[in-house]
Amino acid sequence: MTDQKRQLSLNAFIYPSGHHEAAWRHPASRPDRIYDVTYYQEIGRTAEAAKFDAVFFADGPALRTNVKYNAAPGLEPITLLTAIAAATTHLGLIATASTTYYEPYNLARLFSSLDHISGGRAGWNIVTTGTDLAAANFGLSEHPVHAERYSRAREFVDAVGALWDSWEDDAIILDQKSGIYADPGKIHEINYVGRHLRVRGPFNSARTPQGHPVLVQAGASNDGRSFAGQYAEAIFTAHQRLEDAQTFYTDIKKRVATFGRSPDHVKILPGISPFIGDTEAEAKALEREFNELTVPEYGLAQLQGIVGKDLRSLPLDDTVPLELFSDAGNVTDNARSRLQVVAGIVERERPTVRGLLHRLAGARGHRVFAGTPEQVADTIETWFTSGAADGFNVMPPYYPGGLEVFTETVVPILQERGLFRTEYTGTTLRDHFGLPRPESRFAGGIAAAQ
Amino acid sequence: MTDQKRQLSLNAFIYPSGHHEAAWRHPASRPDRIYDVTYYQEIGRTAEAAKFDAVFFADGPALRTNVKYNAAPGLEPITLLTAIAAATTHLGLIATASTTYYEPYNLARLFSSLDHISGGRAGWNIVTTGTDLAAANFGLSEHPVHAERYSRAREFVDAVGALWDSWEDDAIILDQKSGIYADPGKIHEINYVGRHLRVRGPFNSARTPQGHPVLVQAGASNDGRSFAGQYAEAIFTAHQRLEDAQTFYTDIKKRVATFGRSPDHVKILPGISPFIGDTEAEAKALEREFNELTVPEYGLAQLQGIVGKDLRSLPLDDTVPLELFSDAGNVTDNARSRLQVVAGIVERERPTVRGLLHRLAGARGHRVFAGTPEQVADTIETWFTSGAADGFNVMPPYYPGGLEVFTETVVPILQERGLFRTEYTGTTLRDHFGLPRPESRFAGGIAAAQ
Repeated sequence: MTDQKRQLSLNAFIYPSGHHEAAWRHPASRPDRIYDVTYYQEIGRTAEAAKFDAVFFADGPALRTNVKYNAAPGLEPITLLTAIAAATTHLGLIATASTTYYEPYNLARLFSSLDHISGGRAGWNIVTTGTDLAAANFGLSEHPVHAERYSRAREFVDAVGALWDSWEDDAIILDQKSGIYADPGKIHEINYVGRHLRVRGPFNSARTPQGHPVLVQAGASNDGRSFAGQYAEAIFTAHQRLEDAQTFYTDIKKRVATFGRSPDHVKILPGISPFIGDTEAEAKALEREFNELTVPEYGLAQLQGIVGKDLRSLPLDDTVPLELFSDAGNVTDNARSRLQVVAGIVERERPTVRGLLHRLAGARGHRVFAGTPEQVADTIETWFTSGAADGFNVMPPYYPGGLEVFTETVVPILQERGLFRTEYTGTTLRDHFGLPRPESRFAGGIAAAQ
Repeated sequence: MTDQKRQLSLNAFIYPSGHHEAAWRHPASRPDRIYDVTYYQEIGRTAEAAKFDAVFFADGPALRTNVKYNAAPGLEPITLLTAIAAATTHLGLIATASTTYYEPYNLARLFSSLDHISGGRAGWNIVTTGTDLAAANFGLSEHPVHAERYSRAREFVDAVGALWDSWEDDAIILDQKSGIYADPGKIHEINYVGRHLRVRGPFNSARTPQGHPVLVQAGASNDGRSFAGQYAEAIFTAHQRLEDAQTFYTDIKKRVATFGRSPDHVKILPGISPFIGDTEAEAKALEREFNELTVPEYGLAQLQGIVGKDLRSLPLDDTVPLELFSDAGNVTDNARSRLQVVAGIVERERPTVRGLLHRLAGARGHRVFAGTPEQVADTIETWFTSGAADGFNVMPPYYPGGLEVFTETVVPILQERGLFRTEYTGTTLRDHFGLPRPESRFAGGIAAAQ
C-alpha cells in the first residue's frame, strides 16, 4: 500500500438515544439504557470493529435540555470514556470540556489520566461553553462574554499544555539499585502567569503516551476559527452545503498555515446525520417517521433560543417569515453562526414552521442526509475529495441501530473505494489522525525550574 | 445466618508500589506498572475475590512527593476507579477529592457518573487538602487557613448533596407514547447560597443508584472530627495504639449521635500496614528488609515537614531529642495530629533518628504490624471487638504481593472466625458498609423550583 490514497477520518458522535431530538420515542432507540455503561461500551465496540478513529461526546456543566421532552443528557463524558477505554483497545476517545468552568490543573489531570489509561487514545474537545445557564452553577452572576471566554481559553490551553509537558518523557529513571526513581531536573514547574490564570506546577503525573491528548475544537465564530488555527488538531464543524464547507475548509487551512503549522495536521470533520434505507424512498420515509415523533413545543423553544424571539404565535403550517432573521444584530458572535445556518435553510427552502422544526430536529443544525448506503458513501466521498472535509463526525439519528447500519453498509463501501482503513495502522488517536506526537516544551536542556 | 456476628469492613488502600516509602526498590513491587491501568484492575480483582468492601485512593492536586526517591503519585483516582469499575462487579470504589480545589458542580458530576457507571459503588473521601503546594496550582497566593477550608468544605458537601438530590428518584417517566421523558416538577434547582459557594442547579444527570455516593472523611483535627460527626459515613484514621483508637472511636460515635445520626451508620476504619511472614521472625525480617532500602535524605525531609525544623544536623544513630516536639505551638491544627503521632512514638520508644525514620517509612504514621497471619488476624479482631474499629483500611507495604498475601492468609482466618463475609450480600458500597440509601431532600411534594 505504498501509494495508498489519502484516508478518511470517521468519528462516532455519541448522543444518548441518538441525534434526532425525538429518537428516544422511536422503538429502535434505547432510552432505558442512557445510564447503563454497558450500552456505551457496546457502541464503542461497534465503532472499533468498524475501525472508526474515535467516539466523541459533547458536554456542558448545566442542564440545557428541556428534559420534559428530550432524553438527555446522561453521564459525564471523561468518566464515561474511561469506561469505554476499558472495553476497547484502539478506539480514540474524545470528551468535550469547558475552559470557562474548569480549573486547568484539574482538567489537565483528567485528560492525562484518560490518555495513560487508554494507552494514548484521549482527545479534548475544547469549548468555552455557549450557555449562560452554566454561570449560575459556578457562583457567577453572569456568563463571561465571548471574547473574555476565548481569552481565558487561550491561557487555559497554554497552561494545560505546559502541565502535560512538565515531566519530560525520560524523567522517570527507576533505578532500584541506587534508589533514584525520577530525575528532578526533568520535572518542571511551569510558572504560568496569565491575565486569567496562574499555575505553578509541577504536574503530578508522568507525560502521557501521546504527549498531549489530541486537541479538538468546534467554534465557528471568528474567535473560534482563530483559536482553531492556532491550537486545534481536529475541528468539528456544521455545514449544510458543500460550498459552505469548502469555504470554511479553505479558511481554516490558511489560518493554520499562518501559525506555521502544517495544514495536514488539522483534520476538518463536518457533522453528518445519515438516515439509511435500502432505497432512497425508504430512507426518506424513515426520516419522516422520526420527524413525526417530534413535539412542536420542544422544537419551537429550541428555535426561539436561536433567533431570540417569541415564536409561539407562529402558525405551524405557515411559511416561516423571512423577517425573523432580518434584525439579528444583537445576537452574540457565538450564536450568530447557528443563526446563519438556520437563516440559510429558510431562505433556500422556504419551509413551513413545522417543516423547519423537522429540518432542525435531525441534528441541531448539522447536516441530515437520507439515502441509500451508496448515496451516503457518495456524498462522503464528494466532500472528502473536493476540499470540504478530511473526514466526518458521524451523528446517527438513533442509537445503537443508526451506527450499526452505517458501519455495516456504508463503511464497507468506503473501504472498497480505498478511502477508509480496513485495519488500524497504529494504536493512538494521533496515529489514526496522522498527527505528530509533540515534544515536551521543556525538553532539550532548558534549565529546570524545580 | 440469622444470628450473624457483627461484620468487619476491609478496604484496600492502593498506593502505587505500596505504602512503604521504599517499596518500589524491592523486587516484590512493580514500579514499572504505575501508569498501567491493568495493574490496578488486577489489584481490584484481588480485593474483590477476597470480598473486600472497597479500594481507596488518596489524592492531592499538587506534586507533594519528592519523586527523586519515591515512586508516586501516578494517575488521577476518579478516572482510575472508573477503569477498575469496568473490571469488577461488587467492589466499592473510593476516591479522595478536595473541596478547596474543586468546583462543586464539576465534582458532583464526576462522582455521580462513577456511581452510575459502577452500579452504586462510589465513595468520596472528602479532604480540604493539607498542603500549601496546591494553592499555587490554582492561582492562589496562599493556601486558605484550616478553619476557612472546613467552612468551605461544609458548604461544598451541602451543595454537592443537593445536586445529587436534584433529580428525584422517579423524575424519569420515559413515556414514548406521549413524548414525556421526564417530569420537570421532580427536577429541582438547588439555589444553594453560602458564604463561599453559590450553585443554582438543576443538576444535569439522574439520581444515582446509591442516591449519594458514600461520604468518607479522614481529618483527625477538632474541625475534622466535628465535620466527620455531621457528614461522614466512613472514617479513615491513623492510630498506633489500641487505647488511642478507642478514645477516638468513642469520641466520634458520640459526635455522630449529637447530630441525630445512628452511630452504626459511621464506620471507623483505622489504617494497618501488615508485614506478614510464616513466623513472627520472618515478618520482622521482611520489615527490616524494606526499612534498609529507605534513603535517609528522603525520610528526613518528610520528618522535617512534620516537625517544621531543619533536621539535617541530627546524627542518624543518635537518639531523637525530645525537645524536637516541645515547641510545636505554631503548627497548624491540621498538622498537629500527625505531629502528635510522631511525638508519641518518640516518647514511648526513644528511637534513634534512623529508627524513627524506619518507623515512619512504613505507612506515613499509620500503624505498621509485622507478624504471622494469625497475629494479624488477632490484632484486627482485638481492635474490632474492643471498641476501637469497625474495620480496617488495609495498607499493604508493597503491591501487588502485600495485598495478595493478606487476602490469601489473613482473610480466610477472619472468615473462619465469622468476622468477615465469605460472599457479598449486596451490590452497592452502601450495602457492604450497611449504610442506608438517603432519600432525596426534594422528595415528598416540596414545590419544584424549576
